[in-house]
Amino acid sequence: MNKLEATIRTIKPLDEVVMKAATERQNALTKPQGSLGVLEELSIKLAGIQGKIRPRIGKKTVIVMAGDHGVSEEGVSAFPSEVTLQMVYNFLRGGAGINVISRFVHAEVLVVDIGVAARLELHPRLLDRKVRRGTANISKGAAMSREDALKSLEIGIEVADEAVKQGADVIGTGDMGIGNTTASSAILAAFTELPLDWVVGRGTGIDEEKWELKKKIIHQALVVNKPDRSDPIDVLVKVGGFEIGGLAGCILGAAAHRVPVVIDGFISGAAALLAAELEPKVVDYMFASHLSVEPGHKLILERLGLRPIFQLDMRLGEGTGAALGMHILDLSARILSEMATFSEAGVSGAKKDPGDESKRVKK
Amino acid sequence: MNKLEATIRTIKPLDEVVMKAATERQNALTKPQGSLGVLEELSIKLAGIQGKIRPRIGKKTVIVMAGDHGVSEEGVSAFPSEVTLQMVYNFLRGGAGINVISRFVHAEVLVVDIGVAARLELHPRLLDRKVRRGTANISKGAAMSREDALKSLEIGIEVADEAVKQGADVIGTGDMGIGNTTASSAILAAFTELPLDWVVGRGTGIDEEKWELKKKIIHQALVVNKPDRSDPIDVLVKVGGFEIGGLAGCILGAAAHRVPVVIDGFISGAAALLAAELEPKVVDYMFASHLSVEPGHKLILERLGLRPIFQLDMRLGEGTGAALGMHILDLSARILSEMATFSEAGVSGAKKDPGDESKRVKK
Repeated sequence: MNKLEATIRTIKPLDEVVMKAATERQNALTKPQGSLGVLEELSIKLAGIQGKIRPRIGKKTVIVMAGDHGVSEEGVSAFPSEVTLQMVYNFLRGGAGINVISRFVHAEVLVVDIGVAARLELHPRLLDRKVRRGTANISKGAAMSREDALKSLEIGIEVADEAVKQGADVIGTGDMGIGNTTASSAILAAFTELPLDWVVGRGTGIDEEKWELKKKIIHQALVVNKPDRSDPIDVLVKVGGFEIGGLAGCILGAAAHRVPVVIDGFISGAAALLAAELEPKVVDYMFASHLSVEPGHKLILERLGLRPIFQLDMRLGEGTGAALGMHILDLSARILSEMATFSEAGVSGAKKDPGDESKRVKK
Repeated sequence: MNKLEATIRTIKPLDEVVMKAATERQNALTKPQGSLGVLEELSIKLAGIQGKIRPRIGKKTVIVMAGDHGVSEEGVSAFPSEVTLQMVYNFLRGGAGINVISRFVHAEVLVVDIGVAARLELHPRLLDRKVRRGTANISKGAAMSREDALKSLEIGIEVADEAVKQGADVIGTGDMGIGNTTASSAILAAFTELPLDWVVGRGTGIDEEKWELKKKIIHQALVVNKPDRSDPIDVLVKVGGFEIGGLAGCILGAAAHRVPVVIDGFISGAAALLAAELEPKVVDYMFASHLSVEPGHKLILERLGLRPIFQLDMRLGEGTGAALGMHILDLSARILSEMATFSEAGVSGAKKDPGDESKRVKK
């Protein structure tokens, strides 16, 4: 049994008993029942993941996987492919969006070179896990070999293992890779057979003409490669990216450790879809941070049955949405853990709720 | 000229020159233009309020105004009116939802007794600004005298003055008052003449029967009092609440100091509507934190032209949404101030954008 199979087998369902107790505690807190809405739901799911009625998010880790895409030579992106490398250096210097948001939410950023098409300078905060210098051009053939696809998944699992070993209570997924909305749209189309007009967006900001080209290129990639939707690894092989495989591995690895994973936008969504196709139970460990402007993201979340926590019209990637989402997840845990109950606070409960003994307590 | 008029005259438009410069800076940061969506928009509005291209939110203050409502004797709420008092003590002990969220976002909570229907024990963190022990029952006559309405507005202005003097860079609005969704719905109906089926919700969680009663009571209040929508103070007099007048005053006071105000849910929304009816320019200083489950809240935000930052199905009040909203506003400022530009980071810009000199900078 390889590492991927072993990891998948380790993923267990949520703890329903703890979730029931957490729900009861939420209902006993000094607020009208359900009045903290999604924050209550998040805390209850988190309780089921951690197996604790008072869950806690201490250390937060955002894993940003970077990789290049051979297909970018077709001109599908508004940015040249050297930007992948340049942005990795920007992450390491702390000047990117993900750095600012991570500092704000007290998250650590782990940058992983899993497939950048250049040799990177050594850096203490950069993990060198390069599978290869970028994928092949998917419009002409497979993105990668089956061996490399498995390798990218296993690297993701190992990075998650390491993050958990270092104390991460939650993992956020992030990506960097010029051309990776093209790969993500192709993955989504391969799994769902939805029309390309629905699953292909404007990425970093392309015009109408380039959008038509992008759809043509993705169509070609699907025709040339014929990814087998019943074999998720084949989809990764044919139209994937190293960072997408890596992030799918991270998600599976975190779930195997009963650590929640906050999913970023469209590219992380494609990785989440891949992980869920490999093992549906993994969705129980996922939180969808935001709804991206990329149209395919909504379709992925609907398929996974996840509701995004917020919608701020973001489309940056890098884990920016995930970092903010982890923060809100942390807040939800604190509400469940720290708020006073009606009886602790001596607050009268709702007038009509005779079944709840904690109510109508007098000072 | 009284304090209210003087405050209103002090409110000036936003600084358009700074907003233009802030927009240019956003576009030069290392991300596809517009890819941080609402976070970019928030930062630009904030820049216009503070008159700084790199705005900053240091100290955050949530002002929670508490008052009782005579109309609660009609049975319009799921909770008895003594809960107002009990929750004020819960705020002071730190056990309520607003306390947990404020600790998380590093905001100070100022609790103001502006009209609780009981004598409160002295407490160092409680401001005693009681106008009267609760409003009169609006289904039988005016909520308060015109003198008391003006007093509640001026108390709000003074509390905002004091908060700004103590260093607040942003003010969040919060409320506590059993029965105050009834008053808020009546205010909304008075200003807009919208049908009660649209503007009246379930408050803390009433059933169908009580909802019908609540609408009947509000209808009666409007018929008995005939609030004059062309005179916002008359609306406050006839169907308002002390905490609602106080919060409207806070909002006007903050705007007069060019300090942004983050509006909580439905009750704060009614106060924001009242403030905007008194002086439309005040809306430029408002940020809508979230969209409440209370149906009237959406109608208020539409009328004010504000888009809520997030939507978490919350309906607790207390400033819980505002506290989280202030935090996201703080984050938006940090993104604008701290992210590296393309030229600083040596990142290539978008391929097609010949008008922008900061792009295509080589390492």
